[in-house]
Amino acid sequence: MSDVPAPTADRPSVNGGAAPLFDALCAEAARLRVAVSRDERGVTTVDAGIGVPGGIEAGLRVAEICLGGLGEVRLRAGERHGWPTWLEVRSSQPVLACLASQYAGWSLAASKEETGGRKFFALGSGPARALAAKEALFGELGYRDTAPRGVLVMEVDRVPPSVIVDKLLRDCGLAPPALGLVLTPTASLAGTTQVVARVLEVALHRAHALGFALHDIVEGSAAAPLPAPGADPVDAMGRTNDAILYGGQVHLVVGGSADAAEALARDLPSANSRDHGRGFAELFAAAGHDFYQLDGALFAPAEVWVSHLGSGRTWHAGGLEMALLQRLWGGA
Amino acid sequence: MSDVPAPTADRPSVNGGAAPLFDALCAEAARLRVAVSRDERGVTTVDAGIGVPGGIEAGLRVAEICLGGLGEVRLRAGERHGWPTWLEVRSSQPVLACLASQYAGWSLAASKEETGGRKFFALGSGPARALAAKEALFGELGYRDTAPRGVLVMEVDRVPPSVIVDKLLRDCGLAPPALGLVLTPTASLAGTTQVVARVLEVALHRAHALGFALHDIVEGSAAAPLPAPGADPVDAMGRTNDAILYGGQVHLVVGGSADAAEALARDLPSANSRDHGRGFAELFAAAGHDFYQLDGALFAPAEVWVSHLGSGRTWHAGGLEMALLQRLWGGA
Amino acid sequence: MSDVPAPTADRPSVNGGAAPLFDALCAEAARLRVAVSRDERGVTTVDAGIGVPGGIEAGLRVAEICLGGLGEVRLRAGERHGWPTWLEVRSSQPVLACLASQYAGWSLAASKEETGGRKFFALGSGPARALAAKEALFGELGYRDTAPRGVLVMEVDRVPPSVIVDKLLRDCGLAPPALGLVLTPTASLAGTTQVVARVLEVALHRAHALGFALHDIVEGSAAAPLPAPGADPVDAMGRTNDAILYGGQVHLVVGGSADAAEALARDLPSANSRDHGRGFAELFAAAGHDFYQLDGALFAPAEVWVSHLGSGRTWHAGGLEMALLQRLWGGA
Repeated sequence: MSDVPAPTADRPSVNGGAAPLFDALCAEAARLRVAVSRDERGVTTVDAGIGVPGGIEAGLRVAEICLGGLGEVRLRAGERHGWPTWLEVRSSQPVLACLASQYAGWSLAASKEETGGRKFFALGSGPARALAAKEALFGELGYRDTAPRGVLVMEVDRVPPSVIVDKLLRDCGLAPPALGLVLTPTASLAGTTQVVARVLEVALHRAHALGFALHDIVEGSAAAPLPAPGADPVDAMGRTNDAILYGGQVHLVVGGSADAAEALARDLPSANSRDHGRGFAELFAAAGHDFYQLDGALFAPAEVWVSHLGSGRTWHAGGLEMALLQRLWGGA
Repeated sequence: MSDVPAPTADRPSVNGGAAPLFDALCAEAARLRVAVSRDERGVTTVDAGIGVPGGIEAGLRVAEICLGGLGEVRLRAGERHGWPTWLEVRSSQPVLACLASQYAGWSLAASKEETGGRKFFALGSGPARALAAKEALFGELGYRDTAPRGVLVMEVDRVPPSVIVDKLLRDCGLAPPALGLVLTPTASLAGTTQVVARVLEVALHRAHALGFALHDIVEGSAAAPLPAPGADPVDAMGRTNDAILYGGQVHLVVGGSADAAEALARDLPSANSRDHGRGFAELFAAAGHDFYQLDGALFAPAEVWVSHLGSGRTWHAGGLEMALLQRLWGGA
Repeated sequence: MSDVPAPTADRPSVNGGAAPLFDALCAEAARLRVAVSRDERGVTTVDAGIGVPGGIEAGLRVAEICLGGLGEVRLRAGERHGWPTWLEVRSSQPVLACLASQYAGWSLAASKEETGGRKFFALGSGPARALAAKEALFGELGYRDTAPRGVLVMEVDRVPPSVIVDKLLRDCGLAPPALGLVLTPTASLAGTTQVVARVLEVALHRAHALGFALHDIVEGSAAAPLPAPGADPVDAMGRTNDAILYGGQVHLVVGGSADAAEALARDLPSANSRDHGRGFAELFAAAGHDFYQLDGALFAPAEVWVSHLGSGRTWHAGGLEMALLQRLWGGA
């Protein structure tokens, strides 16, 4: 990866930004109801919902760690569009924060032979991805972090096996005491919170899939309703997806041409998908629990505004589907 | 009280959480328009509205002190439901923050003989309650704080007499320099702010009265409109109550059974009270200014959502009565 | 200016409040996409949008510097009244924060002869104004800052000439290393952000023009929609004005008489102006690009609430003109 440039003065280090947030998460473990442990090698792991309750505040902290310290995640109390609690996300470095750091893009798998028990699979997210830079995306971003510490977040319900931790240390080029791991099951309060906080990242990922030039995206803000965690992992995954696909509102500010900005607004909302309108869990079941059978256009926020720097114009498309969310999440 | 357990790793100290917030309140006294004084024994008192103007920012700080550093209180600018300014409160430790700390549950009385002047009465709130643990509630919570410092908040319009300060020191087991007091008259900006910020606490107190298992309440967020302070103490008390009873929106996340969660949502809103629909000041006058004649069910937020961890379902009940608040608070 | 009193215990230093915020802006320059430079004399200048992109986060920081550390500026994500992104401003010291510091009231002009090139004109805003106290307003406020450091913000698209920096040092009584400058073009993200964040200041300035006693204004909170920066300086100026005149919501808490409070609410909104209802850029063109031909009553927020301390009553007047803003800012 020697052709990938290191961070420069205008490309801050996502791991450098996350390190103090990770340290604060550890220092305030008691009030955040998370558990901090250090393995025999010195790797620090924060359990945010497997053997401990965790909570929404822990999830907000994990979400800001995922954003590499380059974005804010806030909980908004007080009903809006009929739902009582929303998350708000913003970043003035949305591409680095969301794609170089927050995106769950690093596949981490270990066979039964390697683990000596059950096979393991997780998608790693957060800033340590940018140390390893194993994904093709980093070449496109022209970014690689070289910070002396790293933090990786995994949406899992068990501790990763030694073989995976060894791989992380090797690929990130870190000594064990320099690596921090955060574990959040989807069906936990912290897990649900940090996944719904990906509403802006989902918009950026979709913009990328649509071929929009990432370096033209200069600002991003977003909101999404925070559901209760699902009753089981599949239900939980359905809810966090539904929060974004049917409740996500995203505002991007972009450079480039006005035509490209207008097209982005038009093409971005989830209503462009043939699958739009049905709950994610139902769609997932209909697809035989195979993600790759689902329409990629569905993975997008419900409602979008795109503001264009050159002209000052703002295009709007899509809309909330709160009645669907009330039906999926309500008690009736 | 030797049968009350001390805080453990997952039960943080509410006075430990409040101490840095109290120190910041003192350090920023000028910009917050509060006055800091130290008596001859070394007890520090912050006047947030008796001889000084105080203000909303001071009230927000006092509210977070009341929550023992375990919750956030924010002012939301920009009209919502026809009212321009709202408070938002959230905590991932709502039972400790609201009931072990914020609740105004410690009766502090001194006779004319004891004060050498007028008799004194106040309800102490905030984290120092958990050092003294004089209330039966602490036995139910199974919580007692043992921090080396304490902060108590009193909703009063005069400095407490020496005999009361002596009692606080004795009951909390503190040396004078370790005790901080905050005084906020209800009919002040800081006082109104810190009382309306009790919207989440009111919901927890009512849930407790309804017999809901407190240890099953794991998250809470809430909002309430912030009125101007009343023209006198009774008017001021009426307004802060009305803000919660007719403008309060609360979202709880609970464990336990789904049936208990659904019942909590149904039974919690103030609309369950026979007194619902009339302004608090009017009800208080009709009750001969005797609190104990008022229906306990009235002391509850207007609108409630309860999310259930086991099922992921969310029940909703009650509703805002903004037209009533406009009539009570408006200029027409 | 020896008759102007120095800050006292209840009149905090606006430059003292801004200094740590300015230092943080410099320290986080990379992630905020601003550029910090030090001239040969030692004056520190932050470019927040001339030769660098800057951004909304930088603009929020600049706005809080403008408020002298006595106010908060937050971005609110999630659509409200049809617009996706709003700014919120609050201060419990609104007169000092907005008028003694944030108001762009210091005229700074240099002729071609003085600059050795193009003539220069800028309106200085921010706390260093209160060190120089060149404006009559400071006599009315009875406030002059004496902090050992100063920060001035200029809405310009070029670096100020040496002769202007010399004048600032002289008038503020500062050694060069004690002066910080922040430069934000209107047609930049940071510039647009920090100007829209003047929504509360515009209300205070208008209240002053209406003859309302400034010392009676004790609290202020406000919100305004954040547009994309305009395509050029005039378009950009139009948008930031429109955001406030047609999208600004302000809530003031005032002392004094109830009649004066009611009159303030009635007279404050921009709808009192004969020019209300047309976009600022159109009005400015119709006035021959001469500010002084525009009706002063137009420079006011769209919607106002005034709460009165003595009576607890709140008056409301004006209203949003979101359809006009959608037409001016939209992509249709």
